[in-house]
Amino acid sequence: MTYRLFIANKNYSSWSMRPWALLRALDIPFEEVMTPFEGDGQQSAFATFSPTAKVPCLHDGDSAVWESLAIMEYIAEAHPAAWPQAREARAWARCASAEMHAGFPALRNECSMNCALRIDLGEPGAALARDIARLEALWQEGITRFGGPWLAGEQFTAVDAMFAPVAVRVRGYGITLGSPSRDYVERLLAHPAVASWIDQGIAEPWVDEPHEADCIRGRQVIEDRRQPA
Amino acid sequence: MTYRLFIANKNYSSWSMRPWALLRALDIPFEEVMTPFEGDGQQSAFATFSPTAKVPCLHDGDSAVWESLAIMEYIAEAHPAAWPQAREARAWARCASAEMHAGFPALRNECSMNCALRIDLGEPGAALARDIARLEALWQEGITRFGGPWLAGEQFTAVDAMFAPVAVRVRGYGITLGSPSRDYVERLLAHPAVASWIDQGIAEPWVDEPHEADCIRGRQVIEDRRQPA
Ligand SMILES: N[C@@H](CCC(=O)N[C@@H](CS)C(=O)NCC(=O)O)C(=O)O
Ligand SMILES: N[C@@H](CCC(=O)N[C@@H](CS)C(=O)NCC(=O)O)C(=O)O
Repeated sequence: MTYRLFIANKNYSSWSMRPWALLRALDIPFEEVMTPFEGDGQQSAFATFSPTAKVPCLHDGDSAVWESLAIMEYIAEAHPAAWPQAREARAWARCASAEMHAGFPALRNECSMNCALRIDLGEPGAALARDIARLEALWQEGITRFGGPWLAGEQFTAVDAMFAPVAVRVRGYGITLGSPSRDYVERLLAHPAVASWIDQGIAEPWVDEPHEADCIRGRQVIEDRRQPA
Repeated sequence: MTYRLFIANKNYSSWSMRPWALLRALDIPFEEVMTPFEGDGQQSAFATFSPTAKVPCLHDGDSAVWESLAIMEYIAEAHPAAWPQAREARAWARCASAEMHAGFPALRNECSMNCALRIDLGEPGAALARDIARLEALWQEGITRFGGPWLAGEQFTAVDAMFAPVAVRVRGYGITLGSPSRDYVERLLAHPAVASWIDQGIAEPWVDEPHEADCIRGRQVIEDRRQPA
């Protein structure tokens, strides 16, 4: 029995990206089922496979596992490499992942993920600046404490997958970070699982207007990588 | 080495309540360190023990474990009874817990926890009604599927602790629920760990005005259990 992972558009769905990147990074076989956003804010199609009518949702036989963080834990029960093997690094990785799962509201709200667009964010407001400062402190702590190159040590684990969409946002909105965090963003974006998600997102045929508008919000679009130069 | 759990006022701090109730319910020894809210929205004292300057935070020797859900997982590594023992029930409990950790925004925002107050909520708005409907569907699914009396089976586990503050809100704001959920709320409120937190919350000497105002929001206070009748 292989896993079936229900996701939405790769270009937009930051939550879908997380477990997908983890499964790919760990080379765990799974079947991907993609349901594109419908553009009217009514994602009723998602209710056919997910109890919250949201993506991602993982099906394993008869069980539906929803919520990205619970999907990570479910995968980790069968594939312990999903979390760091050292107890302290694992505890830290879970804290950072839970903080991402519930936190960084300004970053999530003001900088919606879009794999294709480069946008000029301008000067971040106070709430966004606070989220960015916390992000840098958190990343720096992990990389320093566990020695890198990944957030909680030598291996790419679930906590890196949790922050993969943040790397897309940092590049897409031109968010300025100090050097250890900047290097980490580059490393994340170059990881084969992450890079492959982004490429597939840019190649998608759907352009969902509400998502595009939410990304742009009157800010200047510097580049749209869907359009051939 | 015993755990040290950093919390804020029991009357208000719904996130602090979750790991406290779990540790108590499982009879795991811990030292409680309470730092009351300061009333000016600047909880700088929390930064002395927590990397996010938020409560709860669990210290185990030199390690600081923050975020309620990560604290649950940390406790579960040493005390497997923190999650249901059956694999499917455990997966479901983690999904429901992660959903609570990041979700139910209207319920959390419009019905802040206050152990002492009974407030007349009036007719819930659309967003709150949606959260309540989802809550009932989720609880009913768990109780039906795993046979009760707790959300994921015969034992009180972390998922029940995650929803303990919701039970306080349901009673405090007089939220109307159907019978399986209503019975579950009664059961939660009567659990010794939960009841003891609530009693201690009502007995606290601090009245934090921003928290009180956030609970009342111009709605009618029917009862304040801090005031002797
Ligand atoms: N806390 C959830 C968040 C899931 C979520 O918000 N997914 C978005 C797409 S990235 C969605 O399905 N939105 C559709 C909707 O809300 O109708 C998780 O971690 O899985
Ligand atoms: N996602 C966090 C939420 C923690 C949280 O928001 N705690 C509140 C009290 S219940 C807090 O510390 N607020 C103080 C502040 O934000 O300054 C968790 O699960 O632990």
